[in-house]
Amino acid sequence: MAYRLEKDTMGDVQVPADKLWGAQTERSRNNFKIGASASMPLEIIYGFAYLKKAAAFTNCELGVLPIEKRDLIAQVCDEILEGKHDDQFPLVIWQTGSGTQSNMNVNEVIANRAHQLAGKTIGEGEKTIQPNDDVNKSQSSNDTFPTGMHIAAYKKILEVTIPGIEQLRNTLEKKSIEFKNVVKIGRTHFMDATPLTIGQELSGYVSQLNHGIKALENTLPHLAEIALGGTAVGTGLNTPKGYAKRVSEFIAQFTSLPFVTAENKFEALAAHDAFVETHGALKQLAVSLNKIGNDIRMLASGPRSGIGELIIPANEPGSSIMPGKVNPTQCEALTMVCAQILGNDVAINVGGMQGHFELNVFKPVMAANLLQSAQLIGDACVSFDEHCAQGIAPNQARITELLNNSLMLVTALNTKIGYYKAAEIANTAHKNGTTLKHEAVALGYVTEQEFDEWVKPEDMVGALK
Amino acid sequence: MAYRLEKDTMGDVQVPADKLWGAQTERSRNNFKIGASASMPLEIIYGFAYLKKAAAFTNCELGVLPIEKRDLIAQVCDEILEGKHDDQFPLVIWQTGSGTQSNMNVNEVIANRAHQLAGKTIGEGEKTIQPNDDVNKSQSSNDTFPTGMHIAAYKKILEVTIPGIEQLRNTLEKKSIEFKNVVKIGRTHFMDATPLTIGQELSGYVSQLNHGIKALENTLPHLAEIALGGTAVGTGLNTPKGYAKRVSEFIAQFTSLPFVTAENKFEALAAHDAFVETHGALKQLAVSLNKIGNDIRMLASGPRSGIGELIIPANEPGSSIMPGKVNPTQCEALTMVCAQILGNDVAINVGGMQGHFELNVFKPVMAANLLQSAQLIGDACVSFDEHCAQGIAPNQARITELLNNSLMLVTALNTKIGYYKAAEIANTAHKNGTTLKHEAVALGYVTEQEFDEWVKPEDMVGALK
Amino acid sequence: MAYRLEKDTMGDVQVPADKLWGAQTERSRNNFKIGASASMPLEIIYGFAYLKKAAAFTNCELGVLPIEKRDLIAQVCDEILEGKHDDQFPLVIWQTGSGTQSNMNVNEVIANRAHQLAGKTIGEGEKTIQPNDDVNKSQSSNDTFPTGMHIAAYKKILEVTIPGIEQLRNTLEKKSIEFKNVVKIGRTHFMDATPLTIGQELSGYVSQLNHGIKALENTLPHLAEIALGGTAVGTGLNTPKGYAKRVSEFIAQFTSLPFVTAENKFEALAAHDAFVETHGALKQLAVSLNKIGNDIRMLASGPRSGIGELIIPANEPGSSIMPGKVNPTQCEALTMVCAQILGNDVAINVGGMQGHFELNVFKPVMAANLLQSAQLIGDACVSFDEHCAQGIAPNQARITELLNNSLMLVTALNTKIGYYKAAEIANTAHKNGTTLKHEAVALGYVTEQEFDEWVKPEDMVGALK
Amino acid sequence: MAYRLEKDTMGDVQVPADKLWGAQTERSRNNFKIGASASMPLEIIYGFAYLKKAAAFTNCELGVLPIEKRDLIAQVCDEILEGKHDDQFPLVIWQTGSGTQSNMNVNEVIANRAHQLAGKTIGEGEKTIQPNDDVNKSQSSNDTFPTGMHIAAYKKILEVTIPGIEQLRNTLEKKSIEFKNVVKIGRTHFMDATPLTIGQELSGYVSQLNHGIKALENTLPHLAEIALGGTAVGTGLNTPKGYAKRVSEFIAQFTSLPFVTAENKFEALAAHDAFVETHGALKQLAVSLNKIGNDIRMLASGPRSGIGELIIPANEPGSSIMPGKVNPTQCEALTMVCAQILGNDVAINVGGMQGHFELNVFKPVMAANLLQSAQLIGDACVSFDEHCAQGIAPNQARITELLNNSLMLVTALNTKIGYYKAAEIANTAHKNGTTLKHEAVALGYVTEQEFDEWVKPEDMVGALK
Repeated sequence: MAYRLEKDTMGDVQVPADKLWGAQTERSRNNFKIGASASMPLEIIYGFAYLKKAAAFTNCELGVLPIEKRDLIAQVCDEILEGKHDDQFPLVIWQTGSGTQSNMNVNEVIANRAHQLAGKTIGEGEKTIQPNDDVNKSQSSNDTFPTGMHIAAYKKILEVTIPGIEQLRNTLEKKSIEFKNVVKIGRTHFMDATPLTIGQELSGYVSQLNHGIKALENTLPHLAEIALGGTAVGTGLNTPKGYAKRVSEFIAQFTSLPFVTAENKFEALAAHDAFVETHGALKQLAVSLNKIGNDIRMLASGPRSGIGELIIPANEPGSSIMPGKVNPTQCEALTMVCAQILGNDVAINVGGMQGHFELNVFKPVMAANLLQSAQLIGDACVSFDEHCAQGIAPNQARITELLNNSLMLVTALNTKIGYYKAAEIANTAHKNGTTLKHEAVALGYVTEQEFDEWVKPEDMVGALK
Repeated sequence: MAYRLEKDTMGDVQVPADKLWGAQTERSRNNFKIGASASMPLEIIYGFAYLKKAAAFTNCELGVLPIEKRDLIAQVCDEILEGKHDDQFPLVIWQTGSGTQSNMNVNEVIANRAHQLAGKTIGEGEKTIQPNDDVNKSQSSNDTFPTGMHIAAYKKILEVTIPGIEQLRNTLEKKSIEFKNVVKIGRTHFMDATPLTIGQELSGYVSQLNHGIKALENTLPHLAEIALGGTAVGTGLNTPKGYAKRVSEFIAQFTSLPFVTAENKFEALAAHDAFVETHGALKQLAVSLNKIGNDIRMLASGPRSGIGELIIPANEPGSSIMPGKVNPTQCEALTMVCAQILGNDVAINVGGMQGHFELNVFKPVMAANLLQSAQLIGDACVSFDEHCAQGIAPNQARITELLNNSLMLVTALNTKIGYYKAAEIANTAHKNGTTLKHEAVALGYVTEQEFDEWVKPEDMVGALK
Repeated sequence: MAYRLEKDTMGDVQVPADKLWGAQTERSRNNFKIGASASMPLEIIYGFAYLKKAAAFTNCELGVLPIEKRDLIAQVCDEILEGKHDDQFPLVIWQTGSGTQSNMNVNEVIANRAHQLAGKTIGEGEKTIQPNDDVNKSQSSNDTFPTGMHIAAYKKILEVTIPGIEQLRNTLEKKSIEFKNVVKIGRTHFMDATPLTIGQELSGYVSQLNHGIKALENTLPHLAEIALGGTAVGTGLNTPKGYAKRVSEFIAQFTSLPFVTAENKFEALAAHDAFVETHGALKQLAVSLNKIGNDIRMLASGPRSGIGELIIPANEPGSSIMPGKVNPTQCEALTMVCAQILGNDVAINVGGMQGHFELNVFKPVMAANLLQSAQLIGDACVSFDEHCAQGIAPNQARITELLNNSLMLVTALNTKIGYYKAAEIANTAHKNGTTLKHEAVALGYVTEQEFDEWVKPEDMVGALK
Repeated sequence: MAYRLEKDTMGDVQVPADKLWGAQTERSRNNFKIGASASMPLEIIYGFAYLKKAAAFTNCELGVLPIEKRDLIAQVCDEILEGKHDDQFPLVIWQTGSGTQSNMNVNEVIANRAHQLAGKTIGEGEKTIQPNDDVNKSQSSNDTFPTGMHIAAYKKILEVTIPGIEQLRNTLEKKSIEFKNVVKIGRTHFMDATPLTIGQELSGYVSQLNHGIKALENTLPHLAEIALGGTAVGTGLNTPKGYAKRVSEFIAQFTSLPFVTAENKFEALAAHDAFVETHGALKQLAVSLNKIGNDIRMLASGPRSGIGELIIPANEPGSSIMPGKVNPTQCEALTMVCAQILGNDVAINVGGMQGHFELNVFKPVMAANLLQSAQLIGDACVSFDEHCAQGIAPNQARITELLNNSLMLVTALNTKIGYYKAAEIANTAHKNGTTLKHEAVALGYVTEQEFDEWVKPEDMVGALK
């Protein structure tokens, strides 16, 4: 392989000749061989591309960067955002906790690519654009990396997470209305209880997701606060006057998202509570989705020896040994995603709680976990929706059979004959394997007619009234 | 010990004669000998007292309970809220996951005490008030226990948690203003960095706590939704028309808190995402407080071999073997609380994710963990505030010594001579153990006069401008 | 209330006259009003009693403590272990993270009580026994508190946790043998699968618990290592020669447990990986027990609309509104305990990971969480065993019905006619709502006779052969 | 793109013509678009290759598979293990929780590749080898996937994790010996304490890692138990007599690892407590490594305003804005890895606790998390060792300066003049900013000569004696 020499303040480094990165990227590649290469999420690199362009525009506007440099920097950033340089970011999550090396990776790639765009060969002559003095002007890793994190996270949540959840929520809501009159037995403690409708049951899931989306949206204002302008420790050293506010406006403009400059830059560098907060909402959604996925898998269990009240789509052969088996595989994928998100939440907490003084140095691990959760939850909701939820249908015969057998219909008698006598009826029917009606009449507590009038499942599901 | 006979639908049970509880409470006492007795938080019992009184008023108003019964029930509830019957609730967290037995404990105590208030002896004659048919009228454990949980949690957060955090926040804010001109060295990566003021450093903590309080308050509307009126499975079976809304109004009135009836009762019984949501905010605060507690302990470290920039109060001898030792004990208590809360969060998630069908049966464990966290965070903030934060003072001599030695003041030269030459100055001074100024001049990059003009710590802390 | 003056190196403190504790305990009471009072587990106090007595014996044997003092100290320790002074330890978990104040609480109570035993009144004359110089001789909080933790944890695990798990394991094993020939349908993915016996199903739980007990026992050697002899930082400063080994022998003798002196005292003070390790095994058991508890609740679901293959004891009325309802309440208590333990594990991890330099200052929170988990898991297993597992019985009629309906019996044909044709049979029977036999013959793949010969559930459960 | 038709029991599916996989793989690709493609760890695919080969050998030996088929299957397995087909496994973690689709992916690739090796074109004529009836013979996904998981995990831990930890442990041990006489100040509560040597301090880390390795090794016997032979539900249906034991022997032979057939196959399918157990040990190591990484970063803090007792290698420029800054980046990568592992532990617990009946369907998520942790911990230890630990050196001047200033040397006087007088000396020196000696003499408690004789740091570090 051919190499060229790149240098930084520590000296020369050999870099693969066909790569755009420079000395510090190469040092990091060699110093941090931990896990798969290039694990630093590309979304963060794209976040950097937005902010580097915004910084160049701001620096130019404030008179500290020539327009030619601004345009070269912006052009490379646009190329990065088009995905043209995805293979130029080889670094891993497990590097310095400030993400300095990924910041420098971006700075170096922009500087070298700008040199090419200026018609030069990399390594030929003095760099047209300096990675530190130009690309990184008015910036520090300490404010750029969290800014990149916030841009990446905000975009992911708006573009993937929320649409995915809403898609599933909408289907469940539609099904809830569709099945609003399908009366079925309820279950509490996993035991037979009084009836409700499938529509009501599904409406609970819809309400969970609505609350979850609301909770997630509540976290967005904190996530919209960006650190840029804080530079090294939050004081904004080496930034021109007005920089922080202006650069956040450019970022908002370039991303079409409502980013604002963080009111307090010291927090914005030293703590990533915004990530803890947003991921807290994601894990709430994971808790909700786990319940929903579990319920649906259990309601669809069978086909002959389970509950079997719901029919879900059969998407693939379910077993390599049991012929004809169909499984609730989308429920399984969904609940596995939930398990991951509950784990990611702890990783983020542990990172977030350990900031020291002016800088939290768990930025990459926090960012990677949140981005993974945000992606998985969105994707899993879409997958679950398209391959399961949309196909949910009631198994009416089974529903009717179970409903009519239920001993808990006796609850309707509480207000007529009191809890104690009603309990006696249910206990006797259970012991004798008979019907409620039979025992109710045999015990002399009600007449047949009264029973028929008072114990009607369709009258026991309130909201239908 | 003397006993009397109490009965429920399963038969007779011997109950200690001097206790107000009945058969079901006694069964639970015997069936669940898990951990310390009476671990079910009293706050939940008080929550029940509010809701039982509200239910009695609603039932009466809606014509299904005589006014005499209403008043007897209400009178006992008031006694409970006055703390007169704290020893009548012997059950543990680790009972049925719906809290049915604690609901019945309350029902039984109210019924028996009402009997006494009606001038009878417990066991004498028919019960004046029936635990199921009267006290529990229009209710189920499935909607009362979550209502009790929400009342207890909401009160605790408003009365203990938020005031505690605000007290600490206010002190930190006051200190932040008081020390806004004390310039000190910054630290990133736990290494020397560019300067900032103590006021700025503390302002980051204030901002964290403000964001945390905001996040906590964002969760309150979900927590204000109460399940009462859903009864067994959310359909509101056996409730009179208008009950759910009216009972929530009585609860709001009796507690002076903005409780509303949950829009969706199926969610309100089957999932406790509201608890997951609220505790998510508590754990965010724990993450913040852990960082703050850690920073302060490290900034106050020494007295002679640590960082030593802050002085904190010496409240007690610190060591049983090392004479004269003083330790940051309030930081330790605070960060231990944070560890507990991070654990509690997982317990709550695990409980919340496992609801099945119409009922989540991890109610008591979720409630107990949230209440503990809410209490601890409030108490710990007050303790930390009174015994540590209020006494924080800068160690000016140490601060000045460290600031003047710092090599990172060289950053001020970046915009004058470029990052590379600045790095050369810092590296040389580090290697030679000399000052920046000495090397800057020796390397010929700046004059003495330029150095003095450009490298002023007090000019490097932006926000002071 | 009457007070007396006590003093420490910081000055005088007023202490309630009827209490045995001294100045430092009182300071801590006032400085740490966090959560319920006296939350520091008594088991740790008893651990201290063992070690204080052992230290006194060792100090005496090594010539640094007079025999009279040894005997007075030992006598108070014995009283503490008899539970005579349980109300003399008012401090909370949320104190200094070294537990110094609880160490001093013990030192002060021993000193004052010894003064009484010596015939004096507290406060009268010079203390017969000095809390620091005598009771704490050759010790530091830094080595006593972890020693107390280890003693308490080891005892709890041996006396409560393991016996509890073994009791449940034994019942499940007995039931596994009892029901070894009860063939039932299996379920994978919560869907019908090939058959197995109840005995086999239960044997899986037994194997889980056996592995869990083994895992827990594997951690005991680390837990048996005690820190005593390390004093302040692990060097053993101010201990007589031979002290560490000898004191561990006395502790082993007094507790009848195999404690040994930690090979490395620096680890023993600075890290509590032994607690992380032991609790790791407890949370593994929680994972196992949650699966077992869940399975049993689901297998016993019904009585008419669930799976209903198992019958479990009805211990109490299950519902305050639904008459005659019986719930798997022991499963619920057990799985709530599991949720708690999974949370406690994180609290312990977070405490364990944050030790700094020579001392981990998360000792009390780690100790309290482990002791709670160890108690709960033991108690919950006993409760679950006595009130549920021992009463498990198969619902033979239901089992037979479900087994004979199963489509997955077709798997037995794989080796005769291949997976594809077998799948066709199952799919057709599912679609038509018919039996496997009917479709197998109709499709012409097997004769009736072949079907009857090849598809026998009792031949499909391997281990019975 | 060109396609060919593949079929399974559900019908025809179009598959990219240049791929070896079949219908079920393609269905899964389309049905589970969740997160990045091909996220199923290759290590698991390799685990499958070992077990498919072993199954073919066993089936052949037991007379149910012709030798030609055995050899074709084995040849493809060898090719897979050589990495020749890495791009033929496109499925994701987030599929069915039994991993059935990855099992079928392997079956299909082997079948199609075997067809090619038999000289045919894929799709030409009947398959030489059937994916279900031949490759999957005597197997089910339910026993193959966990077997693949165990093989992958065991290999990773032996090949990456333990060697990585041991490498770091060895370096720390070497350094511990090298610096065994370097006396320095100790720190407890982050405050100055009595002295110890660097060697002693490092020996604590060595002891932690030794205990951690031991804990990890304790888990290996459980991990060595493999499920193969259990088939669908653990009964071993459709396996020839003797299969389970024999196939485990082949796996042991092919992998050169001590795998054995699981004593209880019902556990082996239905629960993955072995993974919970092994990962429990990994998280214990993460707890240890976090403490070690933190300590080293703090001991090396500065260069001028921190503790500065250790010098660690400067591997790269530390800041994009602060010239000349060097940071403890390896500590940061290491502690970020620890955060991830603490999160992964919860993901694994949540997956492990949710198994239902005969099958745990959180297999892929549990496997992926454990494999990631095992890789990261091994890699991070090597990286930390090579780029940090090996270069650790004491900063002798700083160590001496801090040691001599310490007030906690007064502890040496406890046994001479008592704790109270010693405290008075320390407190006075602290207040006056003077030396211990000065105040000790001024207070008249010791003579200068006594002080010099009694207070010698090098005599206070016990183990040196």
